[in-house]
Amino acid sequence: VHFLGVDIGSAASKAVAVNEEGEILASAAVQLGTGTKGVQSAVETLYAESALDPADRAMTVATGYGRMKYTEADFQMSEITCHAKGIRKLLPTVRTVIDIGGQDSKAIRIDENGAIGQFVMNDKCAAGTGRFLEVMSRVLDADVSQLGELDALAKAPVSISNTCTVFAESEVISRLSEGAMIPDIVAGIHQSVAKRVAGLALRLGIEEDVALTGGVALNRGIIRALEEELKVKLKIAPQPQLTGAYGAAILGRDRYFKELSASANNE
Amino acid sequence: VHFLGVDIGSAASKAVAVNEEGEILASAAVQLGTGTKGVQSAVETLYAESALDPADRAMTVATGYGRMKYTEADFQMSEITCHAKGIRKLLPTVRTVIDIGGQDSKAIRIDENGAIGQFVMNDKCAAGTGRFLEVMSRVLDADVSQLGELDALAKAPVSISNTCTVFAESEVISRLSEGAMIPDIVAGIHQSVAKRVAGLALRLGIEEDVALTGGVALNRGIIRALEEELKVKLKIAPQPQLTGAYGAAILGRDRYFKELSASANNE
Ligand code: SF4
Repeated sequence: VHFLGVDIGSAASKAVAVNEEGEILASAAVQLGTGTKGVQSAVETLYAESALDPADRAMTVATGYGRMKYTEADFQMSEITCHAKGIRKLLPTVRTVIDIGGQDSKAIRIDENGAIGQFVMNDKCAAGTGRFLEVMSRVLDADVSQLGELDALAKAPVSISNTCTVFAESEVISRLSEGAMIPDIVAGIHQSVAKRVAGLALRLGIEEDVALTGGVALNRGIIRALEEELKVKLKIAPQPQLTGAYGAAILGRDRYFKELSASANNE
Repeated sequence: VHFLGVDIGSAASKAVAVNEEGEILASAAVQLGTGTKGVQSAVETLYAESALDPADRAMTVATGYGRMKYTEADFQMSEITCHAKGIRKLLPTVRTVIDIGGQDSKAIRIDENGAIGQFVMNDKCAAGTGRFLEVMSRVLDADVSQLGELDALAKAPVSISNTCTVFAESEVISRLSEGAMIPDIVAGIHQSVAKRVAGLALRLGIEEDVALTGGVALNRGIIRALEEELKVKLKIAPQPQLTGAYGAAILGRDRYFKELSASANNE
């Protein structure tokens, strides 16, 4: 028996299967978000590439922006709950989780017992989210996945003075036409996202350890810039983009055992 | 002798010449903003299309986003001052000026004596500015100047739930692909701008009469939507896009006579 968690984001869909001990058995990520067949494709890939039998699935839990539209789930859980749960299992010393999603960003407090405390969220403004990076990589004619490598080549970051995605886009176009080097612009873009996200996290207050989750945590440039802004070393979960789906799978496993013991008590 | 005012905006440049009585002798507007030859082109057009002789120009005053880069001006004045001055001359009963610019929006209080009181401004976020309309018209494959006519054809406005320009752009693309009618989407876009601008104006407080200035005031859809949001009838200056340049020209004229009388007193 295994437990499946799916995280249907705005830009990507992720699936993770765990066993009764909560260990990851298989996972898959597809760069297609809500409103597409991304989640179906992620689940199919997971089963195709593993020895797991879908018939042994005891529970399916959905999280992420598109979770309500996935009718195959047994239940849905918020991203806040799933990211906190996932991090709690993977990195138990973490007290602050920063998640930069495809179109939002959030900071979540977890107490010593793993309970979720306060959280702050920006889902109204594209600045400081994955969407900002997408818009900018389009202008730079690069893929979002290349931004981390480009950042590593920066010599003198070009600072972006406009926070607004729309105005920053024009600013990047101007800097490009003036001959600025792409890696230097990329470093400036990362700085801009880091400033925005740090502002959000500081509203919550930073308590160490601090983890960065979500697909954006694969970008070493963002990690660098955010560590500079926050002046703390970030913990990065292994496969950070899977944190939400992993948390969802764990919540499914927990629910399964709770229901099992409840029905055992009723007998 | 005449006095020239130029308004160098982000998306358009305007020039107005007035006589000693402050009456408009000639004007020109060019859809090219700061960083281009827009202002030179506007000034050349003004002289080419009028009987005025540049040699008779007694004073040149620059305003707008790009005013500091125009070295031919005798002096520069802020947009706030020039819009207030222009409206004071054109519509003396106005107490609140709302200006929607190419990349900002503002609301300005004028007292009974024409003095500028408080003002509020948004120049950080593209939502609620001309830039929002530009982004949306690109998506709709229309010209900004057509939005007013399209709005008039709307049957059932499609409400846009995202305030952020970037997210609203995606929303408009979705509505288009779902088959929504362009005029209905345009009406929703105008509603979105009006909501944002009304929020700004209400922070200042609305005191009647209320005028709308700037090129966006040529768009009847925006006027309609903003009147609905504010629940007041708006006064629209004749050629509202020239208000800033006109105010600048008047300020040049005032300065000229002040200097003249000062030098007369010194003799
Ligand atoms: S600042 Fe820019 S990115 Fe943020 S909400 Fe406004 S338009 Fe969107």
